[in-house]
Formats: sequence, structure tokens, C-alpha cells
Amino acid sequence: MINAIDSFLRAHFQMRKDSIGAHSPQLLESMEYSLFNGGKRFRPTLSLTTVQGLGGEIEKALPWAAALEMVHTYSLIHDDLPCMDNDDERRGQPTNHKKYGEALALLAGDALLTESFLVLGTYYAQDKALPHLCALLGQASGASGMVGGQAMDMSFGESIDSISQIKKMHAGKTGALISAAVEGATWLAPGAETWRLQLKNLGDQLGLAFQIKDDLLDMEKDPRSYIYHLGVEGTQKALADVHSAATKTITQLPEGCRTLHSFVASNASRDK
Amino acid sequence: MINAIDSFLRAHFQMRKDSIGAHSPQLLESMEYSLFNGGKRFRPTLSLTTVQGLGGEIEKALPWAAALEMVHTYSLIHDDLPCMDNDDERRGQPTNHKKYGEALALLAGDALLTESFLVLGTYYAQDKALPHLCALLGQASGASGMVGGQAMDMSFGESIDSISQIKKMHAGKTGALISAAVEGATWLAPGAETWRLQLKNLGDQLGLAFQIKDDLLDMEKDPRSYIYHLGVEGTQKALADVHSAATKTITQLPEGCRTLHSFVASNASRDK
Repeated sequence: MINAIDSFLRAHFQMRKDSIGAHSPQLLESMEYSLFNGGKRFRPTLSLTTVQGLGGEIEKALPWAAALEMVHTYSLIHDDLPCMDNDDERRGQPTNHKKYGEALALLAGDALLTESFLVLGTYYAQDKALPHLCALLGQASGASGMVGGQAMDMSFGESIDSISQIKKMHAGKTGALISAAVEGATWLAPGAETWRLQLKNLGDQLGLAFQIKDDLLDMEKDPRSYIYHLGVEGTQKALADVHSAATKTITQLPEGCRTLHSFVASNASRDK
Repeated sequence: MINAIDSFLRAHFQMRKDSIGAHSPQLLESMEYSLFNGGKRFRPTLSLTTVQGLGGEIEKALPWAAALEMVHTYSLIHDDLPCMDNDDERRGQPTNHKKYGEALALLAGDALLTESFLVLGTYYAQDKALPHLCALLGQASGASGMVGGQAMDMSFGESIDSISQIKKMHAGKTGALISAAVEGATWLAPGAETWRLQLKNLGDQLGLAFQIKDDLLDMEKDPRSYIYHLGVEGTQKALADVHSAATKTITQLPEGCRTLHSFVASNASRDK
């Protein structure tokens, strides 16, 4: 499945090579540098597995899956910038701005975000899913989703007194795009609207599990971590609870969706 | 017309206030700060005037016009950042990052770009124009348009030996979004497809005129300016030529489009 995603992304940028490269070959290179640097493709794989589980065709969902990965990649490039996390390395390689400079990294992020919607508008031009996918991606990745969660995180400083604030922040910052990966599948498989509510729940649960797991792997006692508020055991218990909730949700879904159990149990964590 | 655009933008963010503000009131504030700081609304006004000239309804085109302004605003926020132009003021006020810090300015730009596509997906959910508008905005503002032109500009350094490179850079950096404002109108007025080719030409001509005029107002002899390559008189002649070409294009359009002459003659220049 990762191969199908990578092939689609490669083919898309091959097709775009001339029109992007005519302006700036460096921009194209820096976009591809971050898009093809060994990411686990968690969001697109999750989305395609859901589509498949619902009896839909992977082929049809590939542009959507690719758009999710472009948004995720742009968010990592911007997060790594000096004014944000100021990271020098990602996945064992220099971060985009370390390799191409801050200005081009900023633009590569902007371009990947824009490209994600261009992909939707192009490949789903004839599909009634387009408005839903476009709005879903906009909600999940923008001011009321990923970017909103990021801004909330920044505003915390050292004073967070409730786990519910942490949950809300993570639901935006990490959860929204993961949830959209699952929910988006319901617009791309025939008859899937029946399961939309359950899949929306599952998406939220997987997003939450992803973050709690990440905290446990980090073992950080940052005030914005679960461990700070719940302790290690409490955090493990919270993870077990959300795992069991997700497992229960999956049993309410069509047989084909049992494959989604692997995303509950997986060790996927922060995509560094 | 500017009032209609501002009212739409205000109403939209009023509607979005709770879901954005729930994450980060500061993010919402910084988005609105740049969106409502006295911009001339050149692109949305141009688009709405074209729609009206073609016999379409302004009401219907407002979300598209608003999306154009959001993209323009995000581009100004990111352009002003220290890693780009490092500007302290815009329109007589502190730039976004001077007021809110670099990190929040970066996110406000990201959020406005994302919001523009969310607006399209939401307001045109039932409209067959959606795929065209979504793809057009993606092309015009991304790696093969505005962002591509910006990256091309950065790559020039001091060595530019042809006016055609300058034209290409400006066609991306400034022209593409202006051209999209005109072209987009053809998807929002009934029967306007007849005039799409001419309006696409007109959009390109207006984008070019905008930039040459800007160079004349700046009188900069930067190697990436028209004046450096053509001299002041040569640049004035180039502007006169593109003005007369645009004027000619307008005569090929329906009677109602004569109002577009004001955009040819206007003194609108770089939107500082």
C-alpha cells in the first residue's frame, strides 16, 4: 500500500515537473526532498485501509491519500523552522531549512499545502466527493484543526491545569488529520455513509491513541504531556482505555474493517 | 463592492469564531489583523467586477472573491517574515510577526491559505464551479504560480540577463493570482465560457500591467526590475503597450465588461 502511495506521489510530481520546474527547480527539489524522506505514510495508509475495508477501490482514494501526506509533510517542514521547534534533523537527515535555507523551506511548505488542494480539485473534478473532501481537509488541517492545535500549544506556556486542555490541543494538532484520514474514506467507498458516525469516532480514537503512545515513548514530563498529568501508569491506563474503545468501535463496522485493528495496536508514533 | 467583500469576510470569521477561538483566540486575532488592515481588495474587486460585467451575481461570487483575498493576505504575511523580506511595517502598521511573533505569523499565514480552500469547499459544495475554482486557485497560488514565482525570484541572485525571465517570475509571483481573479469569474457567471479565452488573456495583461506600474512607482534599478532592463522610457512604453493590448481585449468582451477599463487605468500598485 505504501508502494501505491509513493508511486502516485512520484507520478504526480513527474507530471508537475515542467510547470513547477519552469519557475524554480529548487522549489520542486525541496518539496520532493521532504515528501520522499522515509515517512511511514501513516495517514494515507490508514485512509486507504479504511476505504478497502469498506469495499471501496484504493485507486480512487489515492489522490486523497496523497493530499493527506502532502499536508502532513508541509506541517513537519514548518514545525521544524527556527521560529517553531528549530530542529536540525528529521528522520536522520537535515531538515528542509537546514538543507535549502529557511525561505525555500517556508515556500516548500506553502507549496505542498496548496498542492494538496490542487490534487483534490484535479483528480476529483468529476466526483461528488469533492466538496466533502475539500471541506474536510480544510477543517482538519486549518485554524480549527491542525494549525489551531499548534497555535494552542504555543499559547500554553508553562501553565496548563487540565488534561482536557491537553486533549483539545492534541485533538487539533495531531488528531484532526488522522481522524480526517478515516472519515475521508467514507466519501470514497460506495454506501459508506452508513458507517460515517462510527468511523468518525474511530478516527478520533486513533488520533488520541497516537498521541498518548507518543507521550509514553517520549516519557517527557512536559506540562503538556499526559504523563505530567496522569503519571506513567495513568497514561498507560488511558492508552489501554482508548485502545479498547477503538477495538469496540471496529466491531461495529463491516467485516472488512477488521484490518483496522492493526492501526490500534501499531507502534506508530510521532512521525520524526 | 469593497463593503460587500468586507461584510462577507467579517460574517465568515464571525461564523468561524467559536471553532477557531476554541483552539486559539490569538490565532484568530492575528488572521483578522492582517485580513482587515486596510488592503485595497484589488483581486476580489477585479473578480466581482468581471462577474458583474458578464451578467453574473456578485452574491454568488463573494466566497471566491474572499478566498482570493485570504490567499493574497497569507502571501503578504509570509513575505514579510524575517527569512523573506524581513519587513517591520505594512500599510503603516506593524507586520503580523512584529505584532504576534514569528511563529504565530507563520501559522496565521498557513491558516489563511487553508481557510481559502475551506471557503471554496463549503460555499460551492453544490456548485459545478467548485472543481474549476479549486484547481484554478491551486494552480495560481502554488508551486506553478505565486509560490513558484517567489521561489524563482529568490534564485535569481544578481544575475538576470533576460527580460523574459523577469516576465516569467512576475507572471507567477504577482500575475497568476490577478489572472485567476479574472478567469475565476468565468465559472461564476452564466454563459461566460464563451469569453474564457479572452478573459484569460485580459487577466494576464492586467497582471503584467500591475507589475510594470509597480516598477515605475518604485523606480528601482534592481536587476529584477523592468527599469533595469528597459530604462524608464522603455518601461513606460512597455506599460503603454500592455495597456493598449488590455483595452483591445476588453472591446472583444460583452458591453458590461467595459467597467474593467478602470482596472487598466487604475493606479493600483504593489499592495503594501
